[in-house]
Amino acid sequence: MSDAYLKLHDTFNRISRLEHLLAIGGWDMNVMMSAKGSSERGEAMAELGLEVQRRLAAPEVGEWLQAAEQQTMGADETANLREMRREYDAATTLPPELNEALSIAGSCCEYAWRTQRRENDWQGFAENLKEVVRLSREKAKRLGQLKGVSRYDALLDEFEPGTRSAELDTMFADLRSWLPGLIDTAMARQQQQSPAPLNGPFATEQQHALALDVMKLLQFDFEAGRLDVSAHPFSGGVPTDSRITTRYDESDFITSLMSVIHETGHTRYEQNLPREFAGQPLGLARSMGVHESQSLSFEMQLGRTDEFISLLVPLVNTHLGTDYDSAALAQLARQVAPGKIRVDADELTYPAHIMLRYEIERGLIEGELEVADIPAAWDERMQQYLGVDTRGDYRNGCMQDIHWTDGAFGYFPTYSLGAIYAAQLFAAARAAHPNLMTDIAKGELTALFDWYKANIWQQGRRYSSQELIKRATGKPVDTADYRKHLETRYGN
Amino acid sequence: MSDAYLKLHDTFNRISRLEHLLAIGGWDMNVMMSAKGSSERGEAMAELGLEVQRRLAAPEVGEWLQAAEQQTMGADETANLREMRREYDAATTLPPELNEALSIAGSCCEYAWRTQRRENDWQGFAENLKEVVRLSREKAKRLGQLKGVSRYDALLDEFEPGTRSAELDTMFADLRSWLPGLIDTAMARQQQQSPAPLNGPFATEQQHALALDVMKLLQFDFEAGRLDVSAHPFSGGVPTDSRITTRYDESDFITSLMSVIHETGHTRYEQNLPREFAGQPLGLARSMGVHESQSLSFEMQLGRTDEFISLLVPLVNTHLGTDYDSAALAQLARQVAPGKIRVDADELTYPAHIMLRYEIERGLIEGELEVADIPAAWDERMQQYLGVDTRGDYRNGCMQDIHWTDGAFGYFPTYSLGAIYAAQLFAAARAAHPNLMTDIAKGELTALFDWYKANIWQQGRRYSSQELIKRATGKPVDTADYRKHLETRYGN
Repeated sequence: MSDAYLKLHDTFNRISRLEHLLAIGGWDMNVMMSAKGSSERGEAMAELGLEVQRRLAAPEVGEWLQAAEQQTMGADETANLREMRREYDAATTLPPELNEALSIAGSCCEYAWRTQRRENDWQGFAENLKEVVRLSREKAKRLGQLKGVSRYDALLDEFEPGTRSAELDTMFADLRSWLPGLIDTAMARQQQQSPAPLNGPFATEQQHALALDVMKLLQFDFEAGRLDVSAHPFSGGVPTDSRITTRYDESDFITSLMSVIHETGHTRYEQNLPREFAGQPLGLARSMGVHESQSLSFEMQLGRTDEFISLLVPLVNTHLGTDYDSAALAQLARQVAPGKIRVDADELTYPAHIMLRYEIERGLIEGELEVADIPAAWDERMQQYLGVDTRGDYRNGCMQDIHWTDGAFGYFPTYSLGAIYAAQLFAAARAAHPNLMTDIAKGELTALFDWYKANIWQQGRRYSSQELIKRATGKPVDTADYRKHLETRYGN
Repeated sequence: MSDAYLKLHDTFNRISRLEHLLAIGGWDMNVMMSAKGSSERGEAMAELGLEVQRRLAAPEVGEWLQAAEQQTMGADETANLREMRREYDAATTLPPELNEALSIAGSCCEYAWRTQRRENDWQGFAENLKEVVRLSREKAKRLGQLKGVSRYDALLDEFEPGTRSAELDTMFADLRSWLPGLIDTAMARQQQQSPAPLNGPFATEQQHALALDVMKLLQFDFEAGRLDVSAHPFSGGVPTDSRITTRYDESDFITSLMSVIHETGHTRYEQNLPREFAGQPLGLARSMGVHESQSLSFEMQLGRTDEFISLLVPLVNTHLGTDYDSAALAQLARQVAPGKIRVDADELTYPAHIMLRYEIERGLIEGELEVADIPAAWDERMQQYLGVDTRGDYRNGCMQDIHWTDGAFGYFPTYSLGAIYAAQLFAAARAAHPNLMTDIAKGELTALFDWYKANIWQQGRRYSSQELIKRATGKPVDTADYRKHLETRYGN
């Protein structure tokens, strides 16, 4: 191993130790922090974040990278070096003033948005968002020049390395051709069924005990993680101590149950990343899209199958004192209902929310759309894709998400990439194990998880997302398995 | 304000932001952390600790200190600068190799102690402790030379700045002259009473609800702190988000109740430090002894008075479904029982545990005692001060505490200083407010807390411990109020 590589190795190890405390501090902010601790916590997190950036962008890191890149190394070390280079470039490409301006504009926009959203104040919000968009365009332009890609692709590349909007366009064009029709079919079919009853209330303590049992079934490692409550469910912490959260609604246990299955998918990925590269970029999860593919493999692919639901039934009935059969529980878990809110959307209508956001944010960054154009673009697509009227309701329309307030343009498509990857991965796992579904019905999940572990979790960042999925499934990413999955579950 | 001072101000602010995350990370380790997260958390905490030390010991800090010390400034800024100098000197006096050797020897000794204590393995423990003592002597010698004080005093000064062993000797000599006799008196008196019954079990949830109500009574700010459970009760977090912990024993509610009152005392100090110096050394709690004086003012001075116990009675009875009257609850809270274990000791026998540790650790550091001499010195004093036989029982004798394993020599006396300060402070508060005790009996605690706030909490590090107590009480620290307090409560 070259001296330069060893120095990089040590530097990234140390950085990851600081990031460990950022992860725990971030979890604590959302789960434990006292109201009056908020401002100082923000300053503390920012200070440590700056220290991480300072170490990452240090001139000697650049020199070591150049030196190490001249050496011949093993495949893993070469991949690790490539990922180090990615992080160094990301930390050094933009002038610090631009990063700072974006950070401040994003914080201000987000802060005001909390009130403005409640008050449906589009005009006020638009003023702040304009500055975020202006700076994000500037960032996209500079990154695009460096990477030799379009402006939007330069931002997308931060969340899903190697994926381009040309690929997204193909996928979404395909979705647009069959999704609205499938939603209509599902709705018509659903109207013929009488809805299964939700006989609440379901006490928080009992839902919590149910959640822990379901996590156990999904082989969550409780010696390396825990479940808590927060306003919005999320996965945080570090691989050796993964923190997932949920929230309980005493009138509806399905939402929390499914969100726990979702977050458990994220965590099993984290808990099974390659330990021999812990602390190194290679040892991290590949991308936002691949991460989402794991949570959706659990929540949508596995979690809503008849076979898995038959495992949930006794747990639900025991903990909640209900008497659902598999059909009733499946019906509850597979409701389709076009609505305004993305985070409340079901599996089938969810991609429509992403398509419209992708189209709008891409237009914003490429300069084809201005902030003032957003509401009309939003309303038009909501009507077209979901038949939902959002005119005038900014709060539940284009002001519902936090992403743009912070300048996280390029993030939304990773939700749909995750869904598409998940369908392709689950189909490949079934193909590799012909008895997979009957095993699942018997409660034997290890073969499924072993397949994911070998093909995804243990791979860390060895490959790009596209290459990773291709190696795991034997074919490039496409929407065929996703369409088949949705049509089988929701079509006639 | 001089340029140098402003640079120091900024540097210490930034350091305190990093320390914020060390505090939260430390709390999390004891309350939330998963078993498998331990090793990486240790590394993460060490890395951030190193960064704090690096920033504190930076050469420019020394230069700014020299420059600022030439300037004329206000009293607060001068005091702040003095405390900055203290921290800088502490960070730079010792050669890094010595600090590192001590850190490693301490970690090894503590790690092995966890097993050795369980196995009563004095010989194995003594081997490791010898190295910790050897290095601590070296540290004490160097610090003593710099500060112009004795070796032991140099270590004591780290925990209780400005206090010397000559003062401790005077205090402990006084205690030795009347404490053993008072313990005998208390025991004899106690034997004439039939013990109040502890009619458990007391459910954890009910004890927790009781604890929260008692914290409310003590004006704990729940918007700036919280109560959780950990193996050993402690106070942590930061002033804007103070974290206290307890543990619940379902057969005995008194221990947890009193520990919560104790930790609430620590926290009210933290929550009321001068906010205008937040992030600066001046804005921190004065010392270990002064900190303990606040917890003991709550737990011992206020918490075990008839007046305060009369406030506890309805809370205890409501939450736990008991029917104690004030006399019964007071009796439970004021039990005296000489025993082997310091942390289980009552108010009256506690100082004996400290005296013996002080005498032994001082001998060790000054070179008058060797590690091999500890058991005999321990047994002799336990017999003399408490009439307790500890021969051969190292586990519950000289191996019971964690302090020496880590090289924290000079810490133990601060427990007794805290008790002595607390008695003197509470007596002064009573003198300043003639109706204080009748107000307390009516549930009106604000006058008491206002007195502590003005005289201690808001003072931060403006004065040395001795000066602080003298200003607050109008006389130098002595044991008169402490003796009077104990004799009134436990004597004939």
